[in-house]
Parts: sequence; structure tokens; C-alpha cells
Amino acid sequence: MMKKKDVEAVCRKAKEASRALAIIDEKAKNRILFSMSKALIKNMAYIIRENAKDVASARKKKLKSAFIDRLELDPSRIKAMAASLADIARLKDPVGACIEKIVRPNGLLIKKVRVPIGVILMIYESRPNVTSDCIGLCIKSGNASILRGGSESINSNIAIFKTLTRAASKKGLPTSAVTMIDNTDRAIMDTLLVQDSMIDLVMPRGGESLIRYVNENSRIPVIKHYKGVCHVYVDKAADLKMAGAICFNAKVQRPGVCNAMETMLVHRSVAKKFLPGMIRSFQDAGVEIRGDKGVKRIAKNVSNATEKDWYTEYLDLILSVRIVKNADEAIAHIMKYGSYHSDTIVTKDKSAAARFLKEVDSACVYVNASTRFTDGCEFGKGAEIGISTDKIHARGPMGIEELTSYKYMVFGSGQIRK
Amino acid sequence: MMKKKDVEAVCRKAKEASRALAIIDEKAKNRILFSMSKALIKNMAYIIRENAKDVASARKKKLKSAFIDRLELDPSRIKAMAASLADIARLKDPVGACIEKIVRPNGLLIKKVRVPIGVILMIYESRPNVTSDCIGLCIKSGNASILRGGSESINSNIAIFKTLTRAASKKGLPTSAVTMIDNTDRAIMDTLLVQDSMIDLVMPRGGESLIRYVNENSRIPVIKHYKGVCHVYVDKAADLKMAGAICFNAKVQRPGVCNAMETMLVHRSVAKKFLPGMIRSFQDAGVEIRGDKGVKRIAKNVSNATEKDWYTEYLDLILSVRIVKNADEAIAHIMKYGSYHSDTIVTKDKSAAARFLKEVDSACVYVNASTRFTDGCEFGKGAEIGISTDKIHARGPMGIEELTSYKYMVFGSGQIRK
Repeated sequence: MMKKKDVEAVCRKAKEASRALAIIDEKAKNRILFSMSKALIKNMAYIIRENAKDVASARKKKLKSAFIDRLELDPSRIKAMAASLADIARLKDPVGACIEKIVRPNGLLIKKVRVPIGVILMIYESRPNVTSDCIGLCIKSGNASILRGGSESINSNIAIFKTLTRAASKKGLPTSAVTMIDNTDRAIMDTLLVQDSMIDLVMPRGGESLIRYVNENSRIPVIKHYKGVCHVYVDKAADLKMAGAICFNAKVQRPGVCNAMETMLVHRSVAKKFLPGMIRSFQDAGVEIRGDKGVKRIAKNVSNATEKDWYTEYLDLILSVRIVKNADEAIAHIMKYGSYHSDTIVTKDKSAAARFLKEVDSACVYVNASTRFTDGCEFGKGAEIGISTDKIHARGPMGIEELTSYKYMVFGSGQIRK
Repeated sequence: MMKKKDVEAVCRKAKEASRALAIIDEKAKNRILFSMSKALIKNMAYIIRENAKDVASARKKKLKSAFIDRLELDPSRIKAMAASLADIARLKDPVGACIEKIVRPNGLLIKKVRVPIGVILMIYESRPNVTSDCIGLCIKSGNASILRGGSESINSNIAIFKTLTRAASKKGLPTSAVTMIDNTDRAIMDTLLVQDSMIDLVMPRGGESLIRYVNENSRIPVIKHYKGVCHVYVDKAADLKMAGAICFNAKVQRPGVCNAMETMLVHRSVAKKFLPGMIRSFQDAGVEIRGDKGVKRIAKNVSNATEKDWYTEYLDLILSVRIVKNADEAIAHIMKYGSYHSDTIVTKDKSAAARFLKEVDSACVYVNASTRFTDGCEFGKGAEIGISTDKIHARGPMGIEELTSYKYMVFGSGQIRK
């Protein structure tokens, strides 16, 4: 098991590996990815056996059944992981792409070219498939990765890591291009977070307290994947049938994810017409409604929404509902209580839509569509490494392009500065 | 003078102002910038009077004459600051530009649109003109700014700030869109650096210790502007006349800046032909040469380059010189001792050039041109807020585009996720 004193050497090796990985060509990377995909299928029994240890210990600790459900691997989930690696292989290689070309009056040709970031530290608490997705996305984008998963899935993560790296190294993956931290002690993480001369980026995914901890203790740049307190605002000029379908989809289709709606805002002039039926549909689908005074007056079985509710990411069949007097109040609510993730206006009024798009400062702002589309695949990016709620470097769904930086390549013929 | 307990309120007001500033149009921003430009000229005597206090106190503290030279303002320098603000007004507004347009099979139209970052904290130790440049660049890119300059130029900074904001507020700049921290106590800076819910980005510019301090204590994303240990590598296939001109320009034309050459690497097969004349030219221009053993054997009056020299940004008429046995050794030297800022290969060999461009992991890599071109204006970006040595968000010269983030605007017609 890794010790604190080993951390620096591990990071140095990852840095060296990142330089080798940065310059291997697309075909070689794809060969590695396809061989990893096959290895997952071949080693299915081994991975499931190791995963069973994690599941047993989660049961012993009496962790929530939803948690255990996410943790548990079966053949179909492993097949999905393998398919995802093959999909990543098929994505266009972002490395080397020319983003911009400038010719200067002095004849200098300046090319802005995508390059890998270098070494990426992933700190996550999520499901074991994150391990294989991250390894795949980092290899395709030419980055070395250091993975530090949660203690609850440590046996599964190690089994996936061993399976993938054994297959990959036979196909030429540089040694130390992928590192698994097999010691989940916080002291190890603390030491990793100050290796800013060797690690270029840290991406924490998981609970809010983990993300805050990483942000407060890291000297390495952090891209955060915070919560999604997403809103749908039903404007006075909304097509109410469309609004009903969008709100229902945004809340009910998959409530446990960050792009699900948590608060519905309704213009007061359509509240009486829209809310009773809408709330009944939600309640029929098992959604608990927490509303303001106006909502409670209009609909039945609505409990009182507290100040805390407006800030809450339920990730569950619970919805807070508020009646607003106009679009201004809706925007102000979203800016005060939201998490700047994904927010929708439903309206036929183009100027209301334009104002909402401009003034709501969220990663993804929608007109007349469900918030549930905030997703790498749905945006056409292929697999995603997460959804950034930050504004620096990458915002919203992060695919392999967002895992790159750039450099300027300048071609001269002897130019000197005057 | 600002107190520690005021910091949170100041940041909250800046955040509010950033929302107002984000949505005002280009014409209004340009009116503000032109009025600020004029105000500098009108208030020249007042600014010079306040600057004289800083200069007097710097003399009293016996600070270096080069420092005092950078600090001191005269009419021509103030005119240059005014001209720079007018130039910024003339730059194309980056806010609202559509970077990418995606149409999905389900009919969703996704636009990736540039938006301001929000609130930017500038911490700097540099010359007073940085104050007006930063204010101008932040306003044009729609960002609220909080400026914390060094204590040595505090009176100059406050005079410039007051001049600019008085003129700007008459033209509609939102209150608190620009804030000057008039208290240079470290405790105030420490409190600013944990306001990550209100400040979106911090950019430290100045000495290495200041930048390290900010990076270690900030919870806000940091884009660093570290030193430039820049190299020119003279390859065996170099046009030696061109190499001589480039090396001389890179070292001598303006030695005190971050894109000047600090180390010259020469292929051993051209060393005897190239070095004696080159070193003589340098010495005639007053450059002190520190070389390895091979260099000392070939040229006269060369002192011994120590391990520390290879890491050093002299910012002065000093040059370290090393003979390398091939391009591999040159690249390895740059990757070990360099600061990933700007590095040049001089060669007629296209494959050597291609390898150098690919393998040297610096913000700007050159073939056959001086490192001195790493500069916002030289790259065609207009004024720059600095040169990033980071890989996250922005790398190399940062203009107004690099002071923006983006959001996804998604246009639907009732799409829901299946």
C-alpha cells in the first residue's frame, strides 16, 4: 500500500510518463483503448469477485441501498464500461488540432495547437465505472492520470485498474501513465494536493464536503463539479402543455442526477391554470411537493418550502415550487439560490427568452427544453469526465477537448523584435 | 482605509456589479473607456503629484534605481496609459461571441457563447500603468475587478483609480465595478483569497514569492504569471547568421522582461564556428557570459555556470551558455531547467524543428524567431493582462478573450430526454 513518503516519487513518475504519452500518436492510443476494452470482458469474473468484497463491506456498514446499487457490478455494467472505452477510442483525437492560425505583418505564422494538460489527479467517490471512464478519457487526451477513488469501492477500483493497465502496457502505454492510489488515508490526499510542480490539474467529483476540502487544501488548479440546483421557469407566455412535459421530464425521468430539476418557478398569471394539474401529475408519480404560500393555496398536499429548501439539491423525488411575479423575480431567485448548473425558461416570448439566456449566469441555459440534456453525450462530445460548475478553463459538460490545454507554435524565418 | 471586516461586503458589491457589467453593451463600455482615457490626460498634474509621494518614499527606502525608474510617472507615460485605454476601447468586444454551434439530431441548437468571468482579483507589484491597463481590460471584457497593488505605488494607484472611476461613473459604469484595495496589509489579502463564493479568478503578477504565496493561500482559481527562463537552441542545421541575430535580439534588445533569453544552447558540431564570434558580440554589448566547460574552452572571459544558473531568470545582461550533444539534450535541458514560457530552435532541418515544437512543453515554442515576440500585441491580441505560465484556462499572452468564460445557450422546441 502506498505510503506518504512515496507520493512525491509517484508524482514524478507520472510527470515523466505524461511527456511520453503526450507525443504518442492516435493509432497507438486507440490500440491501447481497444485492448483495455477487451480486457474488461475477459477479466469480468475477477472484477465481479473483487467488487463483491466492497459490496459485502458496504452491507456490513449498513450503507444506503441506493449507494450499494450504484456500487455493485454485474456483467451488463462491465460490458457497458467496455463499450464506453471503445467509444472513447472512436472519438477524434483532440491533441495536435490547430484551434487558431494567425499570420502577422512581419511574416510570423502563429498556430494555437491543442496539447494535453499533463498530469491529472482525479479524486472521486463515485461508482467504479468512473475509474475506467477516467483512465480512457485521460489516455485519449494524452494525459497521465493519478486516480484516488473512495474507500468503499477500493477493491473494485484496484481490480479495474490492474485489468486495464496490464492490457495497456502490452500495447505500449508508458509505465506510470496511469496510477491508482491504493491508500485512501486523508494524509496521502493532503500530500498529493501540494504537488503543484508535478500535477497540473485536480478534479474532485463526489459530495460537497469532499469538493470543498479539496478546493481548500489544493495548491494545484481545481475544476469543481459541485451540485446541480436546477430550475425550470414557466413564463406567462409559456405553452403550458410543453411546460408540463418539460417539468415532468426534468424532475421525474432520473431524479438522482445533477441535471434534474430541483425547483420549479411559475409566473403568477399562469399559476392557477398550470399548477393544479401539474402538481397532481407529480404527486401521482410519487413526487413530494414543497411550495410557497401561493402554491399551497392553489394545490393540495403541499408542504411548506423553507429557505433551506430553495438551496437544496434533493437528488430525489422531491420538488420545491414557487410562484414569481415576473421573469425578473425568477432570474433573481435562480441567481440567489441556484448552483449555476442548468436552468430552463419555457416561453413563446422571444425577448423574455433572450433576457433569461443572457442574465442567468449558469453553465447551461435553456429555452423550451429539459435541463436533463446537460450531458457530454447529449451535447455531442462523447463520454464526459464530469460537469464543471466552474468558470475557469471548462464550464458545463467536459469531454476530451476540455482535457486539453494549448500551446503557441510560432514559425519564423529569422524575425527579430524591433 | 479598508478594514478586514469590510472585505466580505466589498466582494459582495463587486459580485453584484459584475452582473450589471456583464450585460451592458459594447458601445456603453467604449464610452466609458474613452472617457477614462481623456480623464487621465486631464488629471495628469494630480496623478504626477501623488506619484511623487511614492517616488520620494522609495528614495527614502533606498530602493533600486531600476525600481524607481519603473515607478516614476511623467507626462509621456501618462499619455501612453491614456492611449492604451483608447486602444482597448477599439478592440472587438469578446462578450456574446458564438464560439461553437452544434445542432443535435433531436433538433436542439446549442450555442457556446463567450461571457465575462465575473469578478477578477488582481494582485500586483508592478508599475502604476498596470492599474489603468487592468481596469480597462476588465471593463472591456465585462468583468468587475478588485485591484490590490503594492504598497510602494499606493498613492499613484489610488490617484489613477480615482481619476478613472470618477470619469467612468458619469458614463454609467456600475458602482463597485472597479474596487481599489487601499490597505496593503497581508491580512486583507488573506481574507480576499478565501472569498471564493464571490471572486471568480485571482491573477497575481510580480515576484515569485508573491505568486507562490497567493497560490498557496487562495481558494479562488489562480492563473499564475511566473518567471520566464527562456532558451534559444542553435541546432547543427542552423543558419548561423540568422542564429546570431536571433540570439542577440533575444538577450540584448530588452533584457529586463520575461520573454528575454536567459540560456543559449548550442549544438556541439557548430559550437566552434558559432560561439567565439557570438560571445564576443555579447561581451561588446556588455553581456556577462557564464558557460559550461566546453564554452570556457572555446571563448574568453567566460565564468563558470553553476547548477543554479541554469534555473535563473537574470532579467539582466547576463547569459548562461551550454554546449549540447544533440537536440534531445537541448530539449531535456529546457524541460528540466526552463519555466515553460518561450523557447526557440534555430534550424533549417524541418524534422528537428517539428520535434522541438512538439516536445518542448512551453506556452510558446518558436522556429527561427526571437523569443521576444511572446507578447499580446505581437500576437495580434491587443493589450495583454499578462503572460500565463499555467496550462489551465489560458496559456501564454492573455488578452481580453482570455478574460472570458463561456456558457451554453440551448434552444429547444419542447425536447425532453428519453
